[in-house]
Amino acid sequence: MSDALVIFTPSGKRGRFPVGTPVLTAARQLGVDLDSVCGGRGICSKCQISPGYGEFSKHGVTVAPDALSEWNAVEQRYHEKRGLKDGRRLGCQAQVMGDVVIDVPAESQVHRQVVRKAASARPITMDPATRLYLVDVAEPDMHEPSGDFERLARALREQWQIDDITASLDVLRRLQPVLRQGAWQVTVALHKDHLAGPYRVLDIWPGLNESGLYGLAIDLGSTTIAAHLCDLRTGEVVASSGIMNPQIRFGEDLMSRVSYAMMNPGGDVEMTRTVREGMNTLIAALSDEAGITARDIMEAVIVCNPVMHHLFLGIDPVELGQAPFALAMSDSLSLDARALDLHALNPAARAYLLPCIAGHVGADAAAVALSESPESSDDLVLIVDVGTNAEILLGDKRRVLACSSPTGPAFEGAQISSGQRAAPGAIEAIRIDPQTREPRFRVIGCDLWSDDPGFAQATSATGVTGICGSGIIEAVAEMRMAGLVDASGLIGSAEQTGTWRCQAEGRTHAYLIHDASATGGPRITVTQGDIRAIQLAKSALYAGARLLMDEIGTDHVDRVVLAGAFGAHISPRHAMVLGMIPDAHLDKVTSAGNAAGHGARIALCSVSARAAIEATVRRIHKVETAIEPRFQEHFVNASALPHAVDTFPELARIVTLPDVSFNTGGGDGDGGRRRRKRG
Amino acid sequence: MSDALVIFTPSGKRGRFPVGTPVLTAARQLGVDLDSVCGGRGICSKCQISPGYGEFSKHGVTVAPDALSEWNAVEQRYHEKRGLKDGRRLGCQAQVMGDVVIDVPAESQVHRQVVRKAASARPITMDPATRLYLVDVAEPDMHEPSGDFERLARALREQWQIDDITASLDVLRRLQPVLRQGAWQVTVALHKDHLAGPYRVLDIWPGLNESGLYGLAIDLGSTTIAAHLCDLRTGEVVASSGIMNPQIRFGEDLMSRVSYAMMNPGGDVEMTRTVREGMNTLIAALSDEAGITARDIMEAVIVCNPVMHHLFLGIDPVELGQAPFALAMSDSLSLDARALDLHALNPAARAYLLPCIAGHVGADAAAVALSESPESSDDLVLIVDVGTNAEILLGDKRRVLACSSPTGPAFEGAQISSGQRAAPGAIEAIRIDPQTREPRFRVIGCDLWSDDPGFAQATSATGVTGICGSGIIEAVAEMRMAGLVDASGLIGSAEQTGTWRCQAEGRTHAYLIHDASATGGPRITVTQGDIRAIQLAKSALYAGARLLMDEIGTDHVDRVVLAGAFGAHISPRHAMVLGMIPDAHLDKVTSAGNAAGHGARIALCSVSARAAIEATVRRIHKVETAIEPRFQEHFVNASALPHAVDTFPELARIVTLPDVSFNTGGGDGDGGRRRRKRG
Repeated sequence: MSDALVIFTPSGKRGRFPVGTPVLTAARQLGVDLDSVCGGRGICSKCQISPGYGEFSKHGVTVAPDALSEWNAVEQRYHEKRGLKDGRRLGCQAQVMGDVVIDVPAESQVHRQVVRKAASARPITMDPATRLYLVDVAEPDMHEPSGDFERLARALREQWQIDDITASLDVLRRLQPVLRQGAWQVTVALHKDHLAGPYRVLDIWPGLNESGLYGLAIDLGSTTIAAHLCDLRTGEVVASSGIMNPQIRFGEDLMSRVSYAMMNPGGDVEMTRTVREGMNTLIAALSDEAGITARDIMEAVIVCNPVMHHLFLGIDPVELGQAPFALAMSDSLSLDARALDLHALNPAARAYLLPCIAGHVGADAAAVALSESPESSDDLVLIVDVGTNAEILLGDKRRVLACSSPTGPAFEGAQISSGQRAAPGAIEAIRIDPQTREPRFRVIGCDLWSDDPGFAQATSATGVTGICGSGIIEAVAEMRMAGLVDASGLIGSAEQTGTWRCQAEGRTHAYLIHDASATGGPRITVTQGDIRAIQLAKSALYAGARLLMDEIGTDHVDRVVLAGAFGAHISPRHAMVLGMIPDAHLDKVTSAGNAAGHGARIALCSVSARAAIEATVRRIHKVETAIEPRFQEHFVNASALPHAVDTFPELARIVTLPDVSFNTGGGDGDGGRRRRKRG
Repeated sequence: MSDALVIFTPSGKRGRFPVGTPVLTAARQLGVDLDSVCGGRGICSKCQISPGYGEFSKHGVTVAPDALSEWNAVEQRYHEKRGLKDGRRLGCQAQVMGDVVIDVPAESQVHRQVVRKAASARPITMDPATRLYLVDVAEPDMHEPSGDFERLARALREQWQIDDITASLDVLRRLQPVLRQGAWQVTVALHKDHLAGPYRVLDIWPGLNESGLYGLAIDLGSTTIAAHLCDLRTGEVVASSGIMNPQIRFGEDLMSRVSYAMMNPGGDVEMTRTVREGMNTLIAALSDEAGITARDIMEAVIVCNPVMHHLFLGIDPVELGQAPFALAMSDSLSLDARALDLHALNPAARAYLLPCIAGHVGADAAAVALSESPESSDDLVLIVDVGTNAEILLGDKRRVLACSSPTGPAFEGAQISSGQRAAPGAIEAIRIDPQTREPRFRVIGCDLWSDDPGFAQATSATGVTGICGSGIIEAVAEMRMAGLVDASGLIGSAEQTGTWRCQAEGRTHAYLIHDASATGGPRITVTQGDIRAIQLAKSALYAGARLLMDEIGTDHVDRVVLAGAFGAHISPRHAMVLGMIPDAHLDKVTSAGNAAGHGARIALCSVSARAAIEATVRRIHKVETAIEPRFQEHFVNASALPHAVDTFPELARIVTLPDVSFNTGGGDGDGGRRRRKRG
């Protein structure tokens, strides 16, 4: 009988094989991505395939009903015990008997694509560092003495073409009993990332281990630590959670933590211990939520800014607090999670930290780059990760630049008179009627606007407690659009603006949004000081972006991506009215959500992505705002709302800003002056 | 001016160089082994050379008095501060001005040979894994931001052609302050062994570090732990010491320790902790003795038998206690000393364990092979490491075989009625007058024989307390030569032997050596049971050797090397009278002393030696005595003194053994029967 034609979909790979060839064998010879943990022993069921029957004109082949062998005893037994979906076969058992078209479903592919929820980010193609392998190990032979470990290595070489393995003493200690318990058949979890070096045996189980393999994508921020627990086979997120970074008690922002380390001998050690403890707590909570054990977690990928990076690694961040802002280490790090005191993982688990780009542009910015891939963008994209420090990336296929800009915490509601963190009761959106100058707003925890019926009742539990970051941006922008604030940032008086809500506070004015003082609640206003704080922050952000545009030699960016948890809540229109970002068509201003966290997840699921981002980071050109003479000029010009010099034509097409001026020669007189501050 | 001819001795390497070339540069270009830590900055003085002047007819060159440049300021300053030996120059400062012959003294060579004390063993050519490098690191630059570690890596690449480095978090933590303290000049200790992988930064110091680098060669025996502390630059032993293995409290021999682990859950963990604590104690004592700190010790090389190997690594040795005697791991191990809880070393220190040959032939036997190199022997050499278990190697250039044989502890004086450890007061040598049958003996701690005047007084402090291992071997051999014991091992009666010292003890006889019972001291005898114990031990030893000879197809070995601390004290003549070892010319029976310890020291000083012994071990053919049917036959035949079947022609040429037989049909009747026992 002549060979049979085997065509695999969706890859389209095809070849001829002798009748009787198992489908898994054919797939391997053709390089078709068909998973297997047991290596063809008919017990892991990872190699499930769907044969197609009948005419396939596209492929020029007709598949007869007997194109695959009948179910054999192994398949039968598997089906009775575990059940096989209709039409599915085990690729290692079903043999090719005639021409056939075989579909490899996504869940049988090692390198499957993870279904995306957010549209903007780079998709994840699974290429995990840690995988399971079932092996049969030869029994010891007194005539040819060799260690159990050496025989395991030989089995992996012969059965899986894996050449070089290493194991910790802890695994070596468990090796002999596990081999005997499994009657010389064991499952090993092997870890091999993108770096040179042997495969690491992370764990070993008797027989076929079907417990899952999990990994953590951790976004270690100065304020919060957020983590996704991911299934390393499917890439799925099985649990997500976040906690406050317990280091907060040493200082709200990064700079105050650096100061704490400078002023208190051993302060860095204390902060290192604290953040590691916090991370263990978070990991344990995630495991509980997902119903898995610490042993199931094989890897963690961590992204963070440079100060958190150093504090997490146990390196005193003092050098990052002063020029020239030297990192102790900027390259990526691949190490034992245990060296970081992470105990809530498998004892042999590995940790990977993305590379830092510069002293102020950290592994979190690298993760944003991994998620948003500016290096492969056809158009010029500006990516802004808005947080206490803003990290800014600008580039396209030809070139990518990066800088950080010291925005300070105003965008997070800090240093704002009525500011507060984003929490129930905080004003997150606001509109001011340009005619009446009356405000209406929404608070976190309630979908109603403040002028909707039932708002008071719906918010009675939380009250209206303050303004969060996105709220203050909208408030200032709305005040500008309603003619309550002029281009220089001055709030007009009641007389100038025609509304009683603009009330004198000393020599300046404040706009009253909400007054609950009658019932003992707060009086929520936007003060002249608040406007100045927002101006400082947005000027820094804009000046940073402008500096990168100068470097690239352009006045215009094609798209703007707002990243960061906060970026997700900023209204692009309001941001542009403030001149936070360069002028662009509103459709071209999008939010990437937590791009750093997504980048961490990509790196967790794919070793090729780790190699890719390391290569990208080496190519990113870093611009240090602190030493660029033009930064100060850009900063001063950017103080106006939206800008003193640059025109905003796209903005002008959708919004006409009132041409008002409230400067009567007095003013608060500190516009444009600021203390440079990091963190 | 034309180029000058530079000839280096002792290498004989020569080449022409432009006038003005520093000698160090010329040496490097010619591949001459000339040391340097500072890389030619004139501060480490490791590159000292001795120029020769006048006529060198051998080299066909005449060296003018001005063949090298005048002393420059750097050399002058160095000489004033530290002093240069007469005729010495700094190779990095002295420049070639004309034809010159330059001698590189041994202490300026990296790969110098260590002066040998013992003649037998392989010499040590220095090729250490850990070396010091002085580097100038670029300061951070905000325009080209990079981590301090990445700049250190670049400096090593540019200044020392070292491509790939890695460092622990502990080193990374210290990196920034040390770089600044040293004004960007630092000394790093780099470790690179024979394996693939990066150089490891073990430690870092500001400026030029001139503190030493040390390593430990540790022979971890079941009874004692012995260690040499070696200077890793010179190979010199700066301190040596040994302690009792504190595991002894869990069992005297290996088998009883395996039993302890089997019978007591967690017993292996307890023994692991105990041996590691003991090792830390020993290391700390050695550091104290040498006046160095833990931080100066960068490496440890450990050799031991398989059971100690597993217990030290924290692996339950239970599989080694039963067929098929499977090792958990047999290959060499290179790991962090910290993973072994060795705290009395540099925190980044590395540990290397030689490979095990088989379940009963350990890394100690591999170290013996490294020291004695049977694989490069022209003649057939039998190497016997006599301890509780005897490890036996037989081979030559063509082939090397190995086995172990369960001799039991009799050779160490255990299970002997008057036996004791080798300690002051123990009889270590004995002679019996063949005419009078009177004994005279020497005890440890006194050079006098017992019939010398003043012996009683000289030994009054210690007394005569028992017989140690070498003593009992001599005693039994002397009894055989004096006709007190026949070929079957029976002790004759007073009537049969003609001496009152042969006294009845039940149905057998014992030979009285020394009676101090009148003064409350011991009565020291050799009993029939003692003879049987020695017969069992020596039969096992001989049978093992014979088995290897069978495998190689010979009846004769060219040389015998007795290794082991005990081997050093065995008298070859007496060993041969007993038939412990195959017949050979007495001149061809030598002692190698503590060959395992010497092997450990070779591996410590030379990474190429590590590669060599790993290759040798892979080629050694292992013979498992426990499953060789001929072992039992050899064992029974070897029970006779010297042997029931094999002839001992070389022995016969120097000793005529009395042809006596004391078998009167009674006897003790257990000759040849024995319990097989490991450990």
